[in-house]
Amino acid sequence: MAASIPPATVGRLVTYLRVVDEFAAVGVERVSSDELGERAGTSAFQVRKDLATCGRFGTRGSGYTVATLERELRRVLGLTRSWPVAIVGMGRIGQALADYPNFGRQDFVLSGAFDVDPAKVGMRAGSLLIRHLDDLPDVVREHGIEMAFLTVPADAAQDAAKALVGAGVRGLLNFAPAVIHVPAGVFVESVDFVGGLQRLAFALGGRPASTVGIDG
Amino acid sequence: MAASIPPATVGRLVTYLRVVDEFAAVGVERVSSDELGERAGTSAFQVRKDLATCGRFGTRGSGYTVATLERELRRVLGLTRSWPVAIVGMGRIGQALADYPNFGRQDFVLSGAFDVDPAKVGMRAGSLLIRHLDDLPDVVREHGIEMAFLTVPADAAQDAAKALVGAGVRGLLNFAPAVIHVPAGVFVESVDFVGGLQRLAFALGGRPASTVGIDG
Repeated sequence: MAASIPPATVGRLVTYLRVVDEFAAVGVERVSSDELGERAGTSAFQVRKDLATCGRFGTRGSGYTVATLERELRRVLGLTRSWPVAIVGMGRIGQALADYPNFGRQDFVLSGAFDVDPAKVGMRAGSLLIRHLDDLPDVVREHGIEMAFLTVPADAAQDAAKALVGAGVRGLLNFAPAVIHVPAGVFVESVDFVGGLQRLAFALGGRPASTVGIDG
Repeated sequence: MAASIPPATVGRLVTYLRVVDEFAAVGVERVSSDELGERAGTSAFQVRKDLATCGRFGTRGSGYTVATLERELRRVLGLTRSWPVAIVGMGRIGQALADYPNFGRQDFVLSGAFDVDPAKVGMRAGSLLIRHLDDLPDVVREHGIEMAFLTVPADAAQDAAKALVGAGVRGLLNFAPAVIHVPAGVFVESVDFVGGLQRLAFALGGRPASTVGIDG
């Protein structure tokens, strides 16, 4: 576990890995912190500081070797193995995920699809057979699933999360516009597009603090 | 503009609004900072500090009035009007968004769908007619669109963002796993599910800093 790296830094490491992959794809062999920062939308200083968190990368004045940087970022991020992932909730978003062409190369492998709707159970979604949520513990055990997309309606999200945690899944990527609660040792990332729109609304038209007190 | 509120605080205000809406839906009239913090996954202290950023809410010892809190959070977040939103890229994710039942009540109204694929242009997606990306400036002007979902493939994201910004759109919700660059005054939020999986991989299996230096 690398809990000593703050979440904001982890988020930037993920971005650096994406940028490094883009450089590698076009045959670039060395990059500077300036180039990395420019492409990642941050400063060269921040890049050097973040990468120092991961170990002693690079040589002053000659930048970073792309191949080494990619390998070390993948190691720090836990991307040196393949992670089986389940989809819970086969509505439009779940279906779109099942058809998604490429989950970060071979890092993530869709390994189960679940719903409670009898009309969906038994149907196929992409390469997956949709199974009933009751089968979750068996499939999780069989495939060693540790992560899941949670793509159920908001009012079903907490119960579905409970079922996943009960089956041993420790990482949830929650697409439902709901705040879900999990025990210690289980991690939730939110893919919250309504929240994203709301943050944009704030950026474009939000108003600063009221100058008068309210409510007492 | 309310640029004086830090992004992390804005993110929590969005969560508080969701929690407050949930309390309102079940008829709760007053909530304490303890209850808000518990439901939002943060501390009562953080709740009080964040809400103080927005003005003088609440009364010590008697909590917050749900209706007032909702109204003031909506005001601060810029959710006192309806925002027309376009979808650019009508693949599986764009189609799923077009069919999404409820974008935060009436805060966001889907007002345009765009693609460059002749097989898609002219088809319907939910209530929308898919138009060619060339028509973007006209539709943006006609509907007063200021925000867009960017749901194109990663290698098309920067060009599509450029077209949107050129048409006057100032807020982009980027679903593509690509870092995009926009001029000052334009805002990008990322809905990055591959990045979300990578952050979970780090939480579940990432390794801390290497103890030996690399690369020089």
